[in-house]
Amino acid sequence: MSEQDGTLSLVLFSGTDDKLSAAAILAVGAAAMGRPVNVFLQYWALDAFRADRIHKDHGVAPEGGPEGAALMQRMAGEGRSQHWSDLLWQAKDIGEVGVHACSLSMDLFGITKDDLDDIVDDVEGVAAFMAEATGPVVFI
Amino acid sequence: MSEQDGTLSLVLFSGTDDKLSAAAILAVGAAAMGRPVNVFLQYWALDAFRADRIHKDHGVAPEGGPEGAALMQRMAGEGRSQHWSDLLWQAKDIGEVGVHACSLSMDLFGITKDDLDDIVDDVEGVAAFMAEATGPVVFI
Amino acid sequence: MSEQDGTLSLVLFSGTDDKLSAAAILAVGAAAMGRPVNVFLQYWALDAFRADRIHKDHGVAPEGGPEGAALMQRMAGEGRSQHWSDLLWQAKDIGEVGVHACSLSMDLFGITKDDLDDIVDDVEGVAAFMAEATGPVVFI
Repeated sequence: MSEQDGTLSLVLFSGTDDKLSAAAILAVGAAAMGRPVNVFLQYWALDAFRADRIHKDHGVAPEGGPEGAALMQRMAGEGRSQHWSDLLWQAKDIGEVGVHACSLSMDLFGITKDDLDDIVDDVEGVAAFMAEATGPVVFI
Repeated sequence: MSEQDGTLSLVLFSGTDDKLSAAAILAVGAAAMGRPVNVFLQYWALDAFRADRIHKDHGVAPEGGPEGAALMQRMAGEGRSQHWSDLLWQAKDIGEVGVHACSLSMDLFGITKDDLDDIVDDVEGVAAFMAEATGPVVFI
Repeated sequence: MSEQDGTLSLVLFSGTDDKLSAAAILAVGAAAMGRPVNVFLQYWALDAFRADRIHKDHGVAPEGGPEGAALMQRMAGEGRSQHWSDLLWQAKDIGEVGVHACSLSMDLFGITKDDLDDIVDDVEGVAAFMAEATGPVVFI
């Protein structure tokens, strides 16, 4: 197995719309290249995947400022950028993409599987996630 | 050597408790899977490893907000989450885990080896760190 | 090809001077070890590479606070730290280092190739970037 075939492991930590969009774009790009993608949801990113708030405004990184937040909102409003959850569904359509919730973060935030959006496949421990990390590991 | 056996290189840049916890969890998971782990401390993360402040409150990422910070504090207070430094010691007990301070960041912050907590093994240049980076490189 | 020979792919997302410096330091270290480096500019990092603002003050991560920002400014003023763009040029001198602007982010921010500093080689889609990602992928 060449490294190129290794799974792209995306550890999503941040729950802001700009970072989640960047992550989803990488997932789509990797899936388009035929690379398996494994997404692991921790902390604020896990919180953003709750069924009742996945489409809400999650803001942008502080450095974006009010101007950056307004830009992202405008692009989304004009349909010039797709929502990160739609991009992730697209990646799932194109290739082999798994989305796993970190069991430790589930406990920490008091979240159960039923609270999460359907795009999340299952709940997994960090050792199981690391066991599948045969390629790059990206922390976002 | 398969990629799976490659060292997990963790570049710690951020010094907030949530990111350091996420990093320590990955280190424990990788060590549990028998994977060598190499931690490289830069900037704000290096500052957080000073012996006199490693156990102090380092806050959380801005997106966590006051609510998120309070949650982390409560979990720690109730013993429901372990301190990241304890998790790192645990990773060292389980597997082959090295913790290196970035020499450039040491200069920048005016930190000497004596200022750092015992969990830090040594001071290293970035080229030496990259030479050992035979697997994924994760920036946190 | 061993993983060690794999290209170091740096996805630059953040546009603050501390993160861009950390990224440039990794690029120099990898180039010094003879490793190809591929830089992909997205979002706030892309904005920071505009020709008319690359040398301006881009601030530091919020956790640095006013004290951290002042420290970085002082170090730069005293010539004790090099600007990240100079470090990237240095990496280009030492080794095989490409700097690519993400086409999606170009659209999002309304940036054209002419707006960007000369250090940027070209504009590229995410699939092309992922196709070259034969080694670690680092998101900064």
